[in-house]
Amino acid sequence: MTRPYDALETRFRRLNALREAAAMLNWDMSAMMPAGGAEARSEQLAALQVICHELLSDPAVADLLDDAEGDSAPLDPWQRANLREMRRDWLHTTALPADLVDALSRARNRCEMIWRQARPDSDFAAVLPSMQALLDLVRESAAAKSALLGCAPYDALLDEYEPGSSAARIDTVFDHLAAFLPEFLSRVLDRQAAAPPPLAPQGPFPAAVQEALARRLMAAVGFDFAHGRLDTSLHPFCGGVPDDVRITTRYDEADFAKALMGVLHETGHALYERGLPSAWRTQPVGAARGMAAHESQSLLIEMQACRGAEFVAYLAPLARQAFAGDGPAWTADNLRRLYNQVRPGFIRVDADEVTYPAHVILRYRLERQVIAGDLPLADLPAAWNAGMHDLLGITPPDDRQGCLQDIHWFDGAWGYFPTYTLGAIAAAQLFAAAKAAVPEIPAAIGRGDFAPLMGWLRQNVHAWGSFHSTDGLLEQATGRPLDPRALETHLTARYLA
Amino acid sequence: MTRPYDALETRFRRLNALREAAAMLNWDMSAMMPAGGAEARSEQLAALQVICHELLSDPAVADLLDDAEGDSAPLDPWQRANLREMRRDWLHTTALPADLVDALSRARNRCEMIWRQARPDSDFAAVLPSMQALLDLVRESAAAKSALLGCAPYDALLDEYEPGSSAARIDTVFDHLAAFLPEFLSRVLDRQAAAPPPLAPQGPFPAAVQEALARRLMAAVGFDFAHGRLDTSLHPFCGGVPDDVRITTRYDEADFAKALMGVLHETGHALYERGLPSAWRTQPVGAARGMAAHESQSLLIEMQACRGAEFVAYLAPLARQAFAGDGPAWTADNLRRLYNQVRPGFIRVDADEVTYPAHVILRYRLERQVIAGDLPLADLPAAWNAGMHDLLGITPPDDRQGCLQDIHWFDGAWGYFPTYTLGAIAAAQLFAAAKAAVPEIPAAIGRGDFAPLMGWLRQNVHAWGSFHSTDGLLEQATGRPLDPRALETHLTARYLA
Repeated sequence: MTRPYDALETRFRRLNALREAAAMLNWDMSAMMPAGGAEARSEQLAALQVICHELLSDPAVADLLDDAEGDSAPLDPWQRANLREMRRDWLHTTALPADLVDALSRARNRCEMIWRQARPDSDFAAVLPSMQALLDLVRESAAAKSALLGCAPYDALLDEYEPGSSAARIDTVFDHLAAFLPEFLSRVLDRQAAAPPPLAPQGPFPAAVQEALARRLMAAVGFDFAHGRLDTSLHPFCGGVPDDVRITTRYDEADFAKALMGVLHETGHALYERGLPSAWRTQPVGAARGMAAHESQSLLIEMQACRGAEFVAYLAPLARQAFAGDGPAWTADNLRRLYNQVRPGFIRVDADEVTYPAHVILRYRLERQVIAGDLPLADLPAAWNAGMHDLLGITPPDDRQGCLQDIHWFDGAWGYFPTYTLGAIAAAQLFAAAKAAVPEIPAAIGRGDFAPLMGWLRQNVHAWGSFHSTDGLLEQATGRPLDPRALETHLTARYLA
Repeated sequence: MTRPYDALETRFRRLNALREAAAMLNWDMSAMMPAGGAEARSEQLAALQVICHELLSDPAVADLLDDAEGDSAPLDPWQRANLREMRRDWLHTTALPADLVDALSRARNRCEMIWRQARPDSDFAAVLPSMQALLDLVRESAAAKSALLGCAPYDALLDEYEPGSSAARIDTVFDHLAAFLPEFLSRVLDRQAAAPPPLAPQGPFPAAVQEALARRLMAAVGFDFAHGRLDTSLHPFCGGVPDDVRITTRYDEADFAKALMGVLHETGHALYERGLPSAWRTQPVGAARGMAAHESQSLLIEMQACRGAEFVAYLAPLARQAFAGDGPAWTADNLRRLYNQVRPGFIRVDADEVTYPAHVILRYRLERQVIAGDLPLADLPAAWNAGMHDLLGITPPDDRQGCLQDIHWFDGAWGYFPTYTLGAIAAAQLFAAAKAAVPEIPAAIGRGDFAPLMGWLRQNVHAWGSFHSTDGLLEQATGRPLDPRALETHLTARYLA
């Protein structure tokens, strides 16, 4: 006789295959699909989402979950954790009626396609109606989940990306940072101003050469091209599935560091996916822990490792050779100062790690107001610009460099932004712990050898999937839960030492 | 109250979206996926196929079909044709139990992946076990369908690709051709031998330049890049969905005509898909009529139009310019003779239109024996080589140029091959009818203007979807059902005039 738990594993295996299919179609939509394919793709994704919803909302699943939880004694710890994650998945999925799931999927695809045109045109009005239609559905879904999870609507959205977190917890963490950063930023800017500015290597840097160098560095970090691809897209991302991780970038021929650091960032995401426990590949407990954990891996590679002095010393001669560079701009010391230059700017994805939290705090505050119904979307551009001025003292000249810059809201991902800064904190905390445990990590990175670092990360982070909570994962790897002082310590050491 | 017919339309709309999702994943598997993604992809496709199977095998569908057919009086002719095609789809799908569908999908993907390696290695033994496993399942499925459709197992397989056809009908058609071709071939070869051979332009022809020229010609024929892509793959094909048609090719830097003519061929397939009745895009009657009709469209563009004197006269100066060609090899007259050169060879996809039917007749005879159980797979390479010698007087030096050359059997598509030659006949028949109806077609093609031809094809072929049978489609477009004499007339005019 099949145990309830085993019947659940079978059903979640099929669910995983269908979600992987949707993940590949989403990658294709961003990296390959011509514009004319949008309507049909939207129908394909909506049909998949409805099927996945039906698989979980079948009353038999509720019964199986109850039965398995009532009889969880014979399960081993991984199976118990898997059962817990199944329940979580079930809760988030069945909280929404099927027609809302279907409508959300269509509205998301439609809004994203219009945003793709509105952003280069800096035309917020063009995307406003479809953004409003999508937001209405997001708020409806937040209300439905809020009732079921017993939390505020914004927390219900947040929980999808960062399980167990809450606005109250984030406020504590962000308040700590917000108290630290303004004075710290001004000290860093003063110190920078006292030295001659770093020199920017002069391009053009052909995209094909950038790509070849990016592929070489991806391989050095540990990316396996038999299990993944690098392509181009408007908004760089890491997509695909653990066995076939697809990362994307975009090339700026005037500045090769943008794509290069972007690719290293996405490589961090990709290696997390590849390192997830393969024995649990088809099950909820085998998935990445959450978006903060995911971002911790990308930021650990990009910010902690690859903008550090050791890696830049390894990179400098490779870049000089690839682009036939010559002169003082190409020294390791200049490039290190260039890659760690702090300068308030409009674009989040180009921001340095000192000002980045301000970008996130702005979006977090705005999206809480929007979800609460306190800020109409029509007022968003003005509120954005006012917030940028308050936080970083600058005002975007247009919405392309303001509230149109990120895909997230136009893709329905409200409640996602805080995870970037939670991830930055976790990255600092994990990199410090890794170096304490394996002292040769920095020297190895200086030779382009990421094996010691990746070995520690595999063992202490990747291989745990969703076995622990985010704080549990950090506790077993670093000895304490998420702590904003880890980021403050790192920033102080890098920028004021 | 919802009519049974309308409930069926709703269900087939969802089915179509899921099949479109699978079509995109299949394209990705051939054009984009790294090898390490194969296992996960196989699970994704199998899950989709099981879901599609469940959607149709639900007993409610059988009831709805019975009810709708019992009450088809209020339906208009398109709805009635759609209902007929729904029944056909239902028959083919539900003839197989779910576990057989699942096993077939997995075996197909596994065998195809192994074939991808076995072909360049010319290693038939390497692919034999997975080919045998797949064949066993194909024969099991042929037996199941044969019982249900009341026909022979081979005919049941054939019916999936060419509805309503049979080995008996194909024997009649192929016997007619087989009686005509040998003597015709020897007359053509004699005639060719009497003139100096055409000159082959000398490469290398960079792949990027070939691709740019191919894109230009695709656009001239009518391909809309807002609704499709051109990429590379091992085995050129036309995939994707009607709103987003993905064609692929492979480039040989020593001979640009291979990829160019291949791309024009796939463009013919693509324009058929794009021209299907958009009002019926999500329904069975909106699909292409069958593989013979599909191949008629690719061969009409490639063989009938683009190897004709008018198009080659248009192409010659473009090719000369693109590749900086110079000398007598680049004249329109030489290229026309080169592109219509008849020469028995090993590779079907490189064959001229005179020897091509021999390749198809060989495969047709072999696959009938294999499906009947009269030819073990282990004996296939020897039987192949003997057949090639009988039909064209040549013996392949290895299996790479023999029975490993085509993807079809390794992808589970037994019963597919005859449609190539049925399509060649239909192409000749349709092109003759188009020119009779619109006399300016040849002159327009000579200016790179395919609008008059495509207009006639849209109206008389594409826009009908699956409304008619294949013969019905040909009758309304050309005045008679499929007739091998149409191909013989064309060949005589082109090669012996």
